[in-house]
Amino acid sequence: MIQVAVMGYGTIGSGVVEVLEVNRDRIAEKTGQEIAVKYILDLREFPGDPHEEKLVHDFSVIEKDEEVQVVVETMGGVNPAFAFVKACLMSGKHVVTSNKALVAAHGTELLEIAREKNINFLFEASVGGGIPLIRPLTQSLAGEQIQEISGILNGTTNYILSKMAKEGQNFETALRKAQELGYAERNPEADVEGFDTCRKITILTALATGREVNYEEVSTEGITWITDTDFKYASVLNTSIKLFGTSRVEGDNVSVYVCPMMIGPDHPLFGVNDVYNGVMVRGNTVGTVMFYGSGAGKLPTASAVVSDIVEIAGHLADNIAIGWTERKQELMPMEALSYRYFIRFAGTAKEKLPDIQAAFGKVETAELPGMDEFAVLTEKMPEKRYRKLAAAFTDIRQMIRCDL
Amino acid sequence: MIQVAVMGYGTIGSGVVEVLEVNRDRIAEKTGQEIAVKYILDLREFPGDPHEEKLVHDFSVIEKDEEVQVVVETMGGVNPAFAFVKACLMSGKHVVTSNKALVAAHGTELLEIAREKNINFLFEASVGGGIPLIRPLTQSLAGEQIQEISGILNGTTNYILSKMAKEGQNFETALRKAQELGYAERNPEADVEGFDTCRKITILTALATGREVNYEEVSTEGITWITDTDFKYASVLNTSIKLFGTSRVEGDNVSVYVCPMMIGPDHPLFGVNDVYNGVMVRGNTVGTVMFYGSGAGKLPTASAVVSDIVEIAGHLADNIAIGWTERKQELMPMEALSYRYFIRFAGTAKEKLPDIQAAFGKVETAELPGMDEFAVLTEKMPEKRYRKLAAAFTDIRQMIRCDL
Repeated sequence: MIQVAVMGYGTIGSGVVEVLEVNRDRIAEKTGQEIAVKYILDLREFPGDPHEEKLVHDFSVIEKDEEVQVVVETMGGVNPAFAFVKACLMSGKHVVTSNKALVAAHGTELLEIAREKNINFLFEASVGGGIPLIRPLTQSLAGEQIQEISGILNGTTNYILSKMAKEGQNFETALRKAQELGYAERNPEADVEGFDTCRKITILTALATGREVNYEEVSTEGITWITDTDFKYASVLNTSIKLFGTSRVEGDNVSVYVCPMMIGPDHPLFGVNDVYNGVMVRGNTVGTVMFYGSGAGKLPTASAVVSDIVEIAGHLADNIAIGWTERKQELMPMEALSYRYFIRFAGTAKEKLPDIQAAFGKVETAELPGMDEFAVLTEKMPEKRYRKLAAAFTDIRQMIRCDL
Repeated sequence: MIQVAVMGYGTIGSGVVEVLEVNRDRIAEKTGQEIAVKYILDLREFPGDPHEEKLVHDFSVIEKDEEVQVVVETMGGVNPAFAFVKACLMSGKHVVTSNKALVAAHGTELLEIAREKNINFLFEASVGGGIPLIRPLTQSLAGEQIQEISGILNGTTNYILSKMAKEGQNFETALRKAQELGYAERNPEADVEGFDTCRKITILTALATGREVNYEEVSTEGITWITDTDFKYASVLNTSIKLFGTSRVEGDNVSVYVCPMMIGPDHPLFGVNDVYNGVMVRGNTVGTVMFYGSGAGKLPTASAVVSDIVEIAGHLADNIAIGWTERKQELMPMEALSYRYFIRFAGTAKEKLPDIQAAFGKVETAELPGMDEFAVLTEKMPEKRYRKLAAAFTDIRQMIRCDL
């Protein structure tokens, strides 16, 4: 029997307890032993909860109990999660977490402790919820040179953008709907400003390069400035606008960024709508593969946590190689990258196009009936060049990068 | 250093040698040791090939060389692959194969030998080419109760159906185009009759249930009878027609079948076009996840073979639990399953609809201008009931099952 402690009895933590119960037989068959929850750590009381007797309020009970072999951290946030997780690893307990903030900020150190102690620190649930993603990336694609990872990694923003695309809503209305349905927090900043996606693409990049990536260095834009007018153009152009977390690797040149991206129907992530997540990975020999599923939600995320527990059951006495070292990954500035650009100009195409073409070169144009503006799609050019050219125009209303 | 022998120097075998070379550094970093090809077994000569000196024609050279720890089987077909692979395993060598025919026919026995010998028999490349699929299914989703696997598992038929959908071609023209491009064999039977998909869904089902599945018991229909007229209706109905390999699991009730399926834009596999493969997996707690990528091709398939070699490098002295036992899985007859049905009738809707509705109940209708026929979409009903009802109509031109 493997004794587990769950720290944090919120949505994900209670989901983990539920999945361990519902799939008890299947898990026992796979691991050859029972996985039992011994403690649940939470500051709150849960009177009447079927697991009430397992509840403890004092972390040291878990830390000191040598029978506890695996600790699940589903508290969220960096403090006190970091201190607790570090203490568990130091005392020789395997740790599984769903906490992307913790992994993005302290993954390097925690993985290093796990290696030294010959135990495991796993975090499949921290990116892409229930989608098997980290294990395929670190194991199935272990021999690949990863060239690009692009992901729709945040269900809240994808829901909002999908609503805007399908129903013509503006950002505020779609956000309110997402809040009503419980898809968005009362304070939605972490999602809509791209911070959540930033943590996740940071984690994936560290796994792909094997080096530490500082999430504070990742150029991060959210979706608050995307409008219903943008989606009217997107519809005319048969494109969509998604919030992408992307990392591109060319030898030692690695760039990571989060920003809205205009994509066409041939892009593997075009059909990823509503609260779903999708991650595209391009390797030098495997080509393009894509993973899709529920990127959040109680049971899907809990299922990913449980998959890590199951893996640890087969590696109780050895460290699974993750390949994320203390070596620091330098990031290229966003200015060095090249995109196509969707640009909206005030005025009429007839009047402005000659100047625009003189500056940007060949462009596609799009117009909406009855609007005092028009849009162009440029050819691919370095961001640095775009910024220099755009600075000369005072009538630009919007710019969205394109992967078309 | 791990010494490898490659049996079969065709497209995939030479791809494996190439991927091991191209990604040598990355693989060495991940596995901590060099992977070196010692022998290449093929009956043919390859004068001038850079690996000519590794070529052997006699299998026993590989079998008897104790330095060879891993054997890659990329010959295809059951004979002599089965005898060679069995002999390798018996002599304590790990085996990696891309050969779905071998795995579907003899997987149970070969996995049993590997378990007894405490070595590994891996076959990630046998289903879905380069898509990480078998490892996510057996490891990441190990604790899940798998309820459904539906896959577009054959790139040739998916290319043909995509051509028919996009360009209005009939089956014969699309097949010829696929043959010209090298996507279809001169003798395309294994692909277009669904036999290839049958082997692959058999393998996935055995992995999901942990039991042996006899591919000869899988109800298998191909795409040769799908017409350009069917796709005209599909276009009107905003649906598409794909060749599905599906297995559905409800407790001990398992059904596996291969047949064309009409699906709508909300289905996760709707956007899987051309030679790409996609596999949807539904688990009881993870919900729906989907995997997408190149289902064939030299380098993607070779990349999957290499991922198995890399995994074995970390398990040279232990058997990785695959969970596919000798216990036999009984299959439910297709008649017990329920679908919606797309049915084309000769004549006019006005004249025939009353009889059709009297028999099938509520239906949606679709008509094409200038045709002496029309189509209906029924509600969901058991196949047994459909067959009984349909037997009373002499004017049915086509029936395609629907997952709408």
